[in-house]
Amino acid sequence: MGDTSSEVLVVRNKQVIFKNYVNGYPKASDMEVTSDATIRLELPKDGSLILSKNLYLSCDPFLRGRMSKATEASYIESFTPGSPLSGFGVARVLESIHPDFKKGDLFWGIINWEEYSLITDTQTLVKIQHTDVPLSYYTGILGMAGLTAYAGFHEICKPKKGDTVFVSAASGAVGQLVGQYAKLYGCYVVGSAGSKEKVDLLKNKFGFDDAFNYKEEEDLNAALKRCFPDGIDIYFENVGGKMLDAVLSNMKVHGRIGVCGMISQYNRDIPEPSYALGLIILKRIRMEGFLVFEHNHLYPKLLETVLPLIQQGKINYVEDTVEGIENAPDALVGLFTGKNIGKQVVVIAHE
Amino acid sequence: MGDTSSEVLVVRNKQVIFKNYVNGYPKASDMEVTSDATIRLELPKDGSLILSKNLYLSCDPFLRGRMSKATEASYIESFTPGSPLSGFGVARVLESIHPDFKKGDLFWGIINWEEYSLITDTQTLVKIQHTDVPLSYYTGILGMAGLTAYAGFHEICKPKKGDTVFVSAASGAVGQLVGQYAKLYGCYVVGSAGSKEKVDLLKNKFGFDDAFNYKEEEDLNAALKRCFPDGIDIYFENVGGKMLDAVLSNMKVHGRIGVCGMISQYNRDIPEPSYALGLIILKRIRMEGFLVFEHNHLYPKLLETVLPLIQQGKINYVEDTVEGIENAPDALVGLFTGKNIGKQVVVIAHE
Repeated sequence: MGDTSSEVLVVRNKQVIFKNYVNGYPKASDMEVTSDATIRLELPKDGSLILSKNLYLSCDPFLRGRMSKATEASYIESFTPGSPLSGFGVARVLESIHPDFKKGDLFWGIINWEEYSLITDTQTLVKIQHTDVPLSYYTGILGMAGLTAYAGFHEICKPKKGDTVFVSAASGAVGQLVGQYAKLYGCYVVGSAGSKEKVDLLKNKFGFDDAFNYKEEEDLNAALKRCFPDGIDIYFENVGGKMLDAVLSNMKVHGRIGVCGMISQYNRDIPEPSYALGLIILKRIRMEGFLVFEHNHLYPKLLETVLPLIQQGKINYVEDTVEGIENAPDALVGLFTGKNIGKQVVVIAHE
Repeated sequence: MGDTSSEVLVVRNKQVIFKNYVNGYPKASDMEVTSDATIRLELPKDGSLILSKNLYLSCDPFLRGRMSKATEASYIESFTPGSPLSGFGVARVLESIHPDFKKGDLFWGIINWEEYSLITDTQTLVKIQHTDVPLSYYTGILGMAGLTAYAGFHEICKPKKGDTVFVSAASGAVGQLVGQYAKLYGCYVVGSAGSKEKVDLLKNKFGFDDAFNYKEEEDLNAALKRCFPDGIDIYFENVGGKMLDAVLSNMKVHGRIGVCGMISQYNRDIPEPSYALGLIILKRIRMEGFLVFEHNHLYPKLLETVLPLIQQGKINYVEDTVEGIENAPDALVGLFTGKNIGKQVVVIAHE
């Protein structure tokens, strides 16, 4: 770009604006897609380090927390009403004065939900080195969700070959990967999901040994007993609530519960109670919560391990992709009713 | 003793008989102290290995579990209606054909609640080598409760110098020791108990940095915030229920909860619900249950460490002692209403 301002393109910059703090289930109308903003496609001299063109947005359950007013227990900032949402995504560098990123580079990390961004905080950004896989994979299997599954399963659940593993929300971005990592590790793996289609996916696409539709089970305890007559060694917890209590009743002695998320609880004013904690003593269970950002050091190992698995077809990965930033609000809220099948991705632009 | 049966003493053998399975709080009338039985003070040739004179009985919360009908989740057998209770205690060998125990030896381990016993199962019995401390200590600080505190604090809670530590039921057999081990480790220690007298004991006898009477706090959350303005690193869980939820709200990031017991829940048909499990994720908390019998290998280390602490007066230990096996039922049920101050011991005989 030249020095003459008349040469600089000014373009529309569609944004997904966060309207106000949310109680209960989020609705698409809690966000607004506006075409009002424009942006000069030039890096201003205001401290911005990168001008990006945003390509893929990742819809993740943790964004629900950012839609609530922050509390003492929040580990991440709330969204600012009137400003765009932000979350993990993939983008291309249009201009950069950051030494690690040059024009044309691709990266993943936290970006605003808008077509173009001026970025000052680059600490979450990771340069994409391998482009022989779909770029959108960096919103999932090669991004935050992938690292969550990889680190959570290996570091927190500490699997042993032959362990029996249960994964809830098993067809989701994280669950489908945990199940496959567990299979690759030599475990017996069962998953739960919320529709017949998802259950079929678990059994036929992701290679789970068994799976069930939790919405069609009258008694979760009985379903787990059927799938794990000798009990569960590892539970990868994504949902919370009644499922957790049913799992506690079916854990083996010295079982491990890696607590990744509790999506069934995120939209409730008062969480669903747990009645089964006494079993933690009787069964000497270890239950441990984790957040992926404390495991970033494992990312190079993930790439080294998982890229070949993808290339050799030894791991399957299913995305639920919607086209167009204007569909991002619907895609995000759909997560909380289980509308998505696989990893929910929004395409802003393909390149 | 000679071969002639006329020389063998036959004595009364008072027993505490378990009457029937208990629901809710146990009552002294759930047991019966009988003087009907007699015993020949001679080892019969029926497979019995040791004839013991029983000296001290230990009243422990875990015995409540043995008063309920066994369920799938039980880790220990229920008592048999019509037979004596059994539990940890100290006894003296009157006769033995077991190679490790000879006449006159003292031991601790699981014994029947009766004056004399014929013992066939010796696997829990530990010979007492050091008798320069009160023998009753082997029901507590140098016995099961002591090992529970020692192993639970060091192995499960994994303390670091300077950690803030909260102990519930802190004046009990285990709690008083956990608090003191934590102080010796260089931690900041606060305890909760159920009376002013117990709170005074925590502060003045056991050296806790602070303590509160949970029965006089309207808001447990506020009490913990007052005692731990910067949060709790380690919670040694003895009570469960509302206290656990209040603690979860006050844990620091990467806090550890060693789950030893939940005495507030043992007499409830339906456990009190927990609503705060989501915090396990946000705060990356590790919560781990344990049972002392899996840590028996630490007992020699406990003796090596704790005997000198006792001898040098660096650790205090308070027992609540009742004389006479006929008072054992009252002593045991008193545990569940917090009647005891310190470790509850029943003296059958002093030697």
